[in-house]
Amino acid sequence: MSENRRFVLRRRPNGEPVPEDFELVTEPVPGIGEGQFLIRNHYASLDPAMRGWMDDAESYMPPIPLGDPVRASTIGVVAESKAEGFEPGQWVMGLNAIEDYSVGAVGGFTQPIDPQVVPSVTNYLSLFGAVGMTAYFGLFEVCKPREDGTVLVTGAAGAVGSIVGQLAKIRGCRAVGIAGDPEKCRRLTERYGFDAAIDYRGKDEEALTAAIAEAAPDGVDVIFENVGGVILDAGLNSLNMHARVGLCGLISEYNSTDRVGARNLWQLIVKRASITGLLVADYVARFPEGAEQMGKWASEGRIVIDEHIDEGIENAYGAFMRLFSGSNQGKMILKIA
Amino acid sequence: MSENRRFVLRRRPNGEPVPEDFELVTEPVPGIGEGQFLIRNHYASLDPAMRGWMDDAESYMPPIPLGDPVRASTIGVVAESKAEGFEPGQWVMGLNAIEDYSVGAVGGFTQPIDPQVVPSVTNYLSLFGAVGMTAYFGLFEVCKPREDGTVLVTGAAGAVGSIVGQLAKIRGCRAVGIAGDPEKCRRLTERYGFDAAIDYRGKDEEALTAAIAEAAPDGVDVIFENVGGVILDAGLNSLNMHARVGLCGLISEYNSTDRVGARNLWQLIVKRASITGLLVADYVARFPEGAEQMGKWASEGRIVIDEHIDEGIENAYGAFMRLFSGSNQGKMILKIA
Repeated sequence: MSENRRFVLRRRPNGEPVPEDFELVTEPVPGIGEGQFLIRNHYASLDPAMRGWMDDAESYMPPIPLGDPVRASTIGVVAESKAEGFEPGQWVMGLNAIEDYSVGAVGGFTQPIDPQVVPSVTNYLSLFGAVGMTAYFGLFEVCKPREDGTVLVTGAAGAVGSIVGQLAKIRGCRAVGIAGDPEKCRRLTERYGFDAAIDYRGKDEEALTAAIAEAAPDGVDVIFENVGGVILDAGLNSLNMHARVGLCGLISEYNSTDRVGARNLWQLIVKRASITGLLVADYVARFPEGAEQMGKWASEGRIVIDEHIDEGIENAYGAFMRLFSGSNQGKMILKIA
Repeated sequence: MSENRRFVLRRRPNGEPVPEDFELVTEPVPGIGEGQFLIRNHYASLDPAMRGWMDDAESYMPPIPLGDPVRASTIGVVAESKAEGFEPGQWVMGLNAIEDYSVGAVGGFTQPIDPQVVPSVTNYLSLFGAVGMTAYFGLFEVCKPREDGTVLVTGAAGAVGSIVGQLAKIRGCRAVGIAGDPEKCRRLTERYGFDAAIDYRGKDEEALTAAIAEAAPDGVDVIFENVGGVILDAGLNSLNMHARVGLCGLISEYNSTDRVGARNLWQLIVKRASITGLLVADYVARFPEGAEQMGKWASEGRIVIDEHIDEGIENAYGAFMRLFSGSNQGKMILKIA
């Protein structure tokens, strides 16, 4: 416990991040002050949203300062503490960074977790973390699907998307997923229980719109949107009256300097439909409610989660980039220790 | 009463309509069947939405068939009737076309109106017609402004926009309008009571965003959007948390073959904001309620309406095109007889 390896942001990526935008630096393990505690990070969550934090743009959080380690949700163990309620050996979860050691403080985002009550402690970064809570509150509170409706999920093989589809099925909806290759599409229907899956690759807006019409013969009442671009264009072509689009992410734009947005905006008037942005941070106070419900469904076998764990902080760049190449199968997690 | 001049759609406009897309034809006055009545049209409403009806695109109404007269709301007088409740001499309002005579039917969109209870019968095409009801229900039912909020109105010197601004002031909000020249901006503040007006001409997204920040120092809680394009881009940059954008129109796109849409869609996530399409047709059953309230405010001098009336069906093309050049001052109406 003398060194702290940190995956530092050196330069703001221009479009797609390249290895030179980052540097793995070694610093001394930081000291802690009164009310603080030292966290030995074991796992870091790798999420598409982190790409946005690397830009110098107005967002819901300040940009990661250049020279700072890349911000990430982590789980780890308290190594040292001058804070009440955080004893050494206690597992914790919080918004920290991709580094061996982070400093937490009472009243910050870091909370104790209990690894005994979950199949794997990493589930706190998937089903019971921001990912699961985004799916739960985004679908039920923002999109508000009705039992007899059809829910279209884009980025459906991703961590959030795969959960949204399963929640839509639990609610009684028809679930249609869009993903990026035949293998992923097979996973959507066979593993996650989607009623239909669409491979977007090689399809233009017209072909995608036709594929959605086939997969959703009664039209689309809810879109849980993670992607944007031509996939959102086709989704907006497919809406029923008073449909609701929950906008969770726009992964197709994160590595681009172009803004595409919602080109078929006119369809909102035609269908008196809405697009609403959603962010899981708004529901932090209700996480216990969401986690309890998710845990119940998971224990009943009604919801499954896949995690794709790459090992080693030295592999942080490659692991992160899987999110954009789509070479991960499940929630992307980096094992640090 | 032997001839029926009709302003016919000959060809679907490619971008901006040109005179050759239309033809003024003369046909015999149509006969009427049982349950029908003949309307002598006196005034036709000219609205941006009509441009959309000329395209062969999926919308909330079927396209105007080629060879048919251009669909429009009209007011006129029953000339002949085989329908109960519609006696000759009765003033009526309905969705008809730009032509001397239209055939109405019981159970259709045409309703009797009383010219005695309004300052001018043309007010049925402005304050008490689709325009006024769009402003009333669009603002109060879709955008739901709070008393202490700021409402940004785009296309604010237009027929709907000028009413929206006045309704926002009645509600107690700060009203900021965007329009296309200094004279219109002066009209916004001096005649319609907007707190501030922004001339969009010559301003790019950054300059517009800065102008909105100055005119709306507490940010924007509601946008009543009539325009789209760079004006919507700047509006989305200016939203407060949980802001609501009521999407009424996209006049900047109607004569374009490009779809621009909402490029700054990411801001919906940053601000957990929404864009909702609105169409006055959804509120037809509540028009009496809206008209009564508008009439009360008008009689108290709290709301004014300007009408720009061009004369002669032979001038239909030029009058319609004023909507896009912005050379009208007030609700655009064509006097037919």
